[in-house]
Amino acid sequence: MKKMQPMQSVQSLQPLIDELKELAHLNAISALLDWDRATYMPNKSIEVRSEQMALMGRLIHEKHTGDKIRSLLDEHVDLAKGTIRPDADKINNYSEKEKRLLHETYRAWKIATGLPTEFVTELSKLLPKSMHVWEEAKEKNDFNLFAPYLEKVITAKRKEADYIGWNKHPYNALLDFYEPGISQDEISLVFEDLKRGTVELINKIKGSPQFGRENRISKITHNFDLNKQWEFGLKVLEGMGVDFNYLRQDKSAHPFSTSLHPTDVRITTKMCERDFLESLTSTIHEGGHALYELGLPTEWYGTPLGESRSMGIHESQSRLFENVIGRGRSFWTHYYPILKKYFPKELFGISVEDLYYAFNELIITPVRLKADELTYNLHIIIRFEIEKLIINDSSIRVADLPELWNQKYKEYLGVSANNHAEGILQDIHWAGGMIGYFPSYTLGNIYGLQFYNQATKEMGNLNYKFEKGELKGLTGWLKEKIYQKGKEKTVPELLMEITGEKINTHPLLEYLNNKYTEIYQLR
Amino acid sequence: MKKMQPMQSVQSLQPLIDELKELAHLNAISALLDWDRATYMPNKSIEVRSEQMALMGRLIHEKHTGDKIRSLLDEHVDLAKGTIRPDADKINNYSEKEKRLLHETYRAWKIATGLPTEFVTELSKLLPKSMHVWEEAKEKNDFNLFAPYLEKVITAKRKEADYIGWNKHPYNALLDFYEPGISQDEISLVFEDLKRGTVELINKIKGSPQFGRENRISKITHNFDLNKQWEFGLKVLEGMGVDFNYLRQDKSAHPFSTSLHPTDVRITTKMCERDFLESLTSTIHEGGHALYELGLPTEWYGTPLGESRSMGIHESQSRLFENVIGRGRSFWTHYYPILKKYFPKELFGISVEDLYYAFNELIITPVRLKADELTYNLHIIIRFEIEKLIINDSSIRVADLPELWNQKYKEYLGVSANNHAEGILQDIHWAGGMIGYFPSYTLGNIYGLQFYNQATKEMGNLNYKFEKGELKGLTGWLKEKIYQKGKEKTVPELLMEITGEKINTHPLLEYLNNKYTEIYQLR
Repeated sequence: MKKMQPMQSVQSLQPLIDELKELAHLNAISALLDWDRATYMPNKSIEVRSEQMALMGRLIHEKHTGDKIRSLLDEHVDLAKGTIRPDADKINNYSEKEKRLLHETYRAWKIATGLPTEFVTELSKLLPKSMHVWEEAKEKNDFNLFAPYLEKVITAKRKEADYIGWNKHPYNALLDFYEPGISQDEISLVFEDLKRGTVELINKIKGSPQFGRENRISKITHNFDLNKQWEFGLKVLEGMGVDFNYLRQDKSAHPFSTSLHPTDVRITTKMCERDFLESLTSTIHEGGHALYELGLPTEWYGTPLGESRSMGIHESQSRLFENVIGRGRSFWTHYYPILKKYFPKELFGISVEDLYYAFNELIITPVRLKADELTYNLHIIIRFEIEKLIINDSSIRVADLPELWNQKYKEYLGVSANNHAEGILQDIHWAGGMIGYFPSYTLGNIYGLQFYNQATKEMGNLNYKFEKGELKGLTGWLKEKIYQKGKEKTVPELLMEITGEKINTHPLLEYLNNKYTEIYQLR
Repeated sequence: MKKMQPMQSVQSLQPLIDELKELAHLNAISALLDWDRATYMPNKSIEVRSEQMALMGRLIHEKHTGDKIRSLLDEHVDLAKGTIRPDADKINNYSEKEKRLLHETYRAWKIATGLPTEFVTELSKLLPKSMHVWEEAKEKNDFNLFAPYLEKVITAKRKEADYIGWNKHPYNALLDFYEPGISQDEISLVFEDLKRGTVELINKIKGSPQFGRENRISKITHNFDLNKQWEFGLKVLEGMGVDFNYLRQDKSAHPFSTSLHPTDVRITTKMCERDFLESLTSTIHEGGHALYELGLPTEWYGTPLGESRSMGIHESQSRLFENVIGRGRSFWTHYYPILKKYFPKELFGISVEDLYYAFNELIITPVRLKADELTYNLHIIIRFEIEKLIINDSSIRVADLPELWNQKYKEYLGVSANNHAEGILQDIHWAGGMIGYFPSYTLGNIYGLQFYNQATKEMGNLNYKFEKGELKGLTGWLKEKIYQKGKEKTVPELLMEITGEKINTHPLLEYLNNKYTEIYQLR
């Protein structure tokens, strides 16, 4: 009986939902074009791929902003004010879910209608090329090759912010794509707080006699067979609760995850014979993203209720699995004996404690993806600060960015990159137009610990389960609390509903303090 | 100077060409969705893939039959009569190429406008599912699983023929997709001719004391490492003149080739440790298709001048490379020593003659893809005869097809399949709606030898070159004579232009007679 109710009241929303579903299919097809570009596309067909993606970008934008969706949405929402029409509500008696569906649909529509079609086409023509050139520039360690594309991307993103409109800072418009409802200034405050705690802890560690102790695993001449690494990675994904009927993993220059539908999710990893830790942690990280996408409610596919909440919440999942679980002692209590079956020779004389230490050693490096989970947030804060500048301050010149980058690394982490490939060219995000994404990683770290603490409160100490390889209990909890909700709640509402709190750096800092105090025997 | 002329007169065709190019991009995106379905898509996401493909099918059809293309085409062609407008010709002074572009564009438009959008959507929803079910049915050897889908496909294809309109037989409308300009009755005549000559030769071989002699290579317990097979296959493709900057090979249940653009062509093969000949010949076959697609003129991309002429001409390329070259003695004179480096143990005691014989042994089998090049055409003729029936004769029942299939195999080849997987379920074509495609293989065999004889006339005996691994000379000749022409000529015109002849089974039959007379020491 109860099940019938939403079905019934959805009735008149159905034509709108059908259109949104088609829009979602087009986005999924675009995602496949991009996935293919990064994985299997022949090397020199980037020109035509850019044209194909630009065409899809235009079709998506035309459909999103076209008459059909406009008039269907207009039946339910006053397009001038953005409020739900009382008369439509009277007829439909919208559920809370449906109201949220309408609000979020309107929000996305409003953003899309702010962007001229030519701009969208240009951008979707630019980005695949820019990413392709970035790859080449990184390989050749040549910033000048990439600079004109970075210039174009920055200009486009500033324009985009202007088209959409912004409050206080243009950068706020870009942040809003990835983490709606939290502003640049709010993030700055939270990050300052985190920075203080992080720097304090780093200094403590640096003062410890244990700092710089031999990392036994890194001293081995690693030669971890790629196929075995691959198989072990799949085993871990399976343990996390991933269903390979709906997910695949491939290789790409920069690991990423993408979703075409909750039944077709794809992740990639980068494999390296000499750095098995990096490829495994990236598999677990992308696996966390994948769990979210696989766990979204298929019955709402195409609508905001079938979409992930925000990139911060997304990263909370990937970072939780990567760090709290994947770099955790209890996880390795279970997986170490399995790993040893794959690499008996390679791990000869290496204890589970050696491995645990290798995964958690403080690594002060210019390369974000090689960083430990403590200093990692400083890498993000550097990028956040540079992003604020390049979007808000039009006097910044692209040619000056490498120096600015290096300065900040010197100041915050005390390191210098040997080359641009390990410096400003290390990340694909800017090449892909994803300016405003980076904060999501650290927001994700913060949210992740808030969720994890709550899960522990509700389910008891999870470490006992992890020691037996039982991760699926947590996955189930996260699916129920987060994945199945789609965009039903705002980020602050979701945090409050699940944890009873606002965003709060305390759980993360406490966790890091406990972990590193034990590892480095502080105090 | 001469180069400027076509550019200038194309001017006012440009808006039409731009639209056709977008249509080609959409078709390419559809092709990628299908390629992905067959290669990498997660197992259980076929439902949503069908929806995506149906949506693309609809968008393509809407664009092709929409107002924009209609009115742009209408400027140049009288849409009621299909003739070029004299006034437009006066202004543009169309080149012969442009006239052909317009004629062929009109022809494709006329077919598309004959099909209702709902029909196209339904069909593009049906086919991916049907192919997916076929795969499962073949694996499980269960015809009943596939039967309802085959029924639906046949019904749809009959409807399609009716929508388009046909002459004499509905099947003619379907043949016209793949081999325009040659009718069912004409093909029947040519095939009868070929059948006579083939059966005569088979009988001669069967009467020879050499028939059934030991095939030494098949007696080895083969265990050809898949990775090495793969590498050798790539080496052969390279030798054929394939550029891997624009082409990739992957694995799939049924080998196929697809093209997104002359700079992004994809082929697949099926690998088997125990049957290295089958996977290699399929690589060479698809490689022949790929050469055609890679060799099309990019400057005409999207227009008929940038499209392959017909599936018969396409198969003439794949079958020429697969059989005349890839199963030829001079080819193996060069490649055998290379192959032996990959498989020294496996080929111990096997001479190049043994290998040549293994590749050319008369194999009377129920499985088309395992057949020798002589009996192969009988496999095609069986399918052609059944296709005529299932499309032209509405009293035929799907449930009766396996028996009909088996009867014909008994009659023409004297063999029975052990199961449906090796019988009526062996091919993907019907599942994919490609009824009318099969004749292309044998037409291709016929054309191929006509082309090959001409190439020999112009370039001298090619075998001397093949013995040195020099295949690219022939590839270059084919590119100039065929690939670069797109649809500039009709099939009969192209044949006439290149060889000075109409379709003619004589070169093929002569070639087969010579080859098998030598192998089986006939007379």
